[in-house]
Amino acid sequence: MKNFTSVEDINDLQSMIKKALEIKANPLAEPNKGNGKTIGLVFLNSSLRTRLSSQIAAQNLGLNVLMLNAAQEAWNLEYNDGVVMDGGTVEHIKDAIEVLNQYCDIIAVRCFAGMKSKEDDTTESILSQFEKHAKVPVVSLESATRHPLQSFADCITITENWKQEKKPKVVLTWAPHVKPIAHAVANSFTEWMQALDVDLVIANPEGYDLDPNFVKDTPIVHNQDEALKDADFIYVKNWSSFEDYATMPEVKEDWLLSLEKLKPTNDAKVMHCLPVRRNLELSDEVMDSEHSIIYQQAKNRIFSAQTVFSEILNELK
Amino acid sequence: MKNFTSVEDINDLQSMIKKALEIKANPLAEPNKGNGKTIGLVFLNSSLRTRLSSQIAAQNLGLNVLMLNAAQEAWNLEYNDGVVMDGGTVEHIKDAIEVLNQYCDIIAVRCFAGMKSKEDDTTESILSQFEKHAKVPVVSLESATRHPLQSFADCITITENWKQEKKPKVVLTWAPHVKPIAHAVANSFTEWMQALDVDLVIANPEGYDLDPNFVKDTPIVHNQDEALKDADFIYVKNWSSFEDYATMPEVKEDWLLSLEKLKPTNDAKVMHCLPVRRNLELSDEVMDSEHSIIYQQAKNRIFSAQTVFSEILNELK
Amino acid sequence: MKNFTSVEDINDLQSMIKKALEIKANPLAEPNKGNGKTIGLVFLNSSLRTRLSSQIAAQNLGLNVLMLNAAQEAWNLEYNDGVVMDGGTVEHIKDAIEVLNQYCDIIAVRCFAGMKSKEDDTTESILSQFEKHAKVPVVSLESATRHPLQSFADCITITENWKQEKKPKVVLTWAPHVKPIAHAVANSFTEWMQALDVDLVIANPEGYDLDPNFVKDTPIVHNQDEALKDADFIYVKNWSSFEDYATMPEVKEDWLLSLEKLKPTNDAKVMHCLPVRRNLELSDEVMDSEHSIIYQQAKNRIFSAQTVFSEILNELK
Repeated sequence: MKNFTSVEDINDLQSMIKKALEIKANPLAEPNKGNGKTIGLVFLNSSLRTRLSSQIAAQNLGLNVLMLNAAQEAWNLEYNDGVVMDGGTVEHIKDAIEVLNQYCDIIAVRCFAGMKSKEDDTTESILSQFEKHAKVPVVSLESATRHPLQSFADCITITENWKQEKKPKVVLTWAPHVKPIAHAVANSFTEWMQALDVDLVIANPEGYDLDPNFVKDTPIVHNQDEALKDADFIYVKNWSSFEDYATMPEVKEDWLLSLEKLKPTNDAKVMHCLPVRRNLELSDEVMDSEHSIIYQQAKNRIFSAQTVFSEILNELK
Repeated sequence: MKNFTSVEDINDLQSMIKKALEIKANPLAEPNKGNGKTIGLVFLNSSLRTRLSSQIAAQNLGLNVLMLNAAQEAWNLEYNDGVVMDGGTVEHIKDAIEVLNQYCDIIAVRCFAGMKSKEDDTTESILSQFEKHAKVPVVSLESATRHPLQSFADCITITENWKQEKKPKVVLTWAPHVKPIAHAVANSFTEWMQALDVDLVIANPEGYDLDPNFVKDTPIVHNQDEALKDADFIYVKNWSSFEDYATMPEVKEDWLLSLEKLKPTNDAKVMHCLPVRRNLELSDEVMDSEHSIIYQQAKNRIFSAQTVFSEILNELK
Repeated sequence: MKNFTSVEDINDLQSMIKKALEIKANPLAEPNKGNGKTIGLVFLNSSLRTRLSSQIAAQNLGLNVLMLNAAQEAWNLEYNDGVVMDGGTVEHIKDAIEVLNQYCDIIAVRCFAGMKSKEDDTTESILSQFEKHAKVPVVSLESATRHPLQSFADCITITENWKQEKKPKVVLTWAPHVKPIAHAVANSFTEWMQALDVDLVIANPEGYDLDPNFVKDTPIVHNQDEALKDADFIYVKNWSSFEDYATMPEVKEDWLLSLEKLKPTNDAKVMHCLPVRRNLELSDEVMDSEHSIIYQQAKNRIFSAQTVFSEILNELK
């Protein structure tokens, strides 16, 4: 594996999941694999799970870890090429990346969508600079349009929780929020579920259909009750409008998941990437019920990261 | 030892002090004791000594260390149960703790008093959530009402500096300040001195008596000169009113410790937990005199933490 | 080596450069040299290269590393002696240093010029406190008047790029900026080039002459074109007025380096310490040309730091 920024970087998802479960069973099996090598974990945005799970994963492999809260600890970054930097930005992102090339064997970066320009976000205005200028492998710790380490952890979690022969029915359902939220988790979950080959349905209100480039032929249902029927897994996530970018068209129906709404499901497992705004995105009664496999998802973030770092190290040797 | 949040978590203080002094004599005697285990050091507030000494202590034992400046690096936390999170908070503290459970073998947390609600602070509104939701040992790095790693270091420091058979006279004296300061250090020092079995006196102005649940039968003296007479150790600390919570009743006398005030003492050693506001809480002439054992206290923070982590690791094995 | 704050701390520059190049050839040759020892990397200001390269250097030697973003993570520091600390400062710098003495075997600190008082900056009001109060070796990670780890890396870089018998002509040229910038990099480069024994010329507009205590007998030229003629190395850096301290006297000529301006040079290599404001301090066409050895400078920051830490460890053993 060279880079890891989307499901496209995986050759064989089933085999990657198998490796991740082996790592989970014995996370310290290769404690010196990364010795003498350095991973830079660069955060342009907040993080709890990604920050900690990536560190643990790297430490489990014996990698040196450099943490960089770029915005607070380093310099205000310029993202536009060719400009005269006579304003508030002090260092061009491409120079920062060239320096990271000198210091790191792997660069991992978190760079959220700006939620201002549809074009900037859909073209991955920040991550694309890392892909262009990095001379070492790049790992996405969530970018404008994808959160692949989360989605890989979700695949691991669903695999652990599904022992039947038939494909599970997986519903990605929109949830309410108070401000416009990015599409990264929803997009990414969609493309990884397509690769996992489950029966995927996306449920969201009118006006909230995801980018067709991610949806492809996955059915979109605008009635939540209809979508949830017979569901085996329900993935809860808010996102803002893609079409009328980063707006929040009015929603009249109640999309907050409740135990009542789970009744017509197949005793569904409920998933969320966290952080979750309780009783806005997801009710306490569901969060704290046995339906939830949310903390197991969080734990699996270690093993998705460790599997990816391990695969990258295989090719660095 | 399961948790470490107060002196109650110690079975035998003398034996713990003895262990701490052994660790101080040879801090790298067990460099692999924590191998393969992870401690999360979670800071909800500022820290210098606690941050550095806890890291050193953990590294001396071979623990993996995760540092988390929760407020700046992760998400704005909600502390109230059952609320609809449609405001400025993004993640509930109990979900953050459940995630830390997945990633850490020990969770250490600093969570100061809010100094707004007496009830919130005396009931440890934040630490209690860690005690309730954590599934791994919890270590307090200072909470609303206690600072046990500091107090344990204070016990070590007094033990190092007292070679006589009789009990030393220890005076905890209030000092001036410009804003309302929490009771944690004063409360905690009181309960650890009670356990250490010294002759403890608390000196503070009228209106500044500490919480009776901590004071118990320790004498409170409202005249500083009277209290300091024949003192062997003087612990200087400001705190605000407990009764009229977090206010600062007017004080007419001069409570700033000077060399003159030390004359009637038994050549007393002067202690402070740091940070100290010089010439407000404690005069330069005392801070920089041979009376001060303040930096020795700071150094002993390493060994109080290392002893506690080591004891916890004994039970994790 | 005891401290490392200027070129004065080096006995034999050529031998230090030789050691640095040996370390660069085999950075992991002494992975246990620093075992059981702790370096505190204290940042009072922003940093990218220094933060990461110092960490890597320390890790390559097996040192324990404590990172401290003092301003954000610890307490607001007081720098004036004898004051009553009844304002916004919470801890005196000398107490913070005394605590670092307890915790660290080496203290490294970044403390920029305040750019308000010429006297405070030229007397190194912050670094001098570290030099005065530290009981362990002090390493400057850039101070008010010098950036010695950068300058040492610059010496390494020039050595790598110069294979002729004759001395290279090195031009330190002023560049435009939008705000008053400190003199540390320019001063420091000047004194290290004097020690390296190159043909050094300083080019800057009228009103921008550096501190004569650093310039000594190095020629200053106020015409950039004249200075650049036959240059082998061009070091680009902005600085504000020293004489009329921290002001920006008007400059009518165009001092932005272009490929056109490089024509009369000896196919000069172009250097910059980074971060660089592109197209203000240095044009894209030069930055991205084969003239630039800027990223090589950045890489050599690892080896300048590792050489210095290694020398200090020799005397700590």
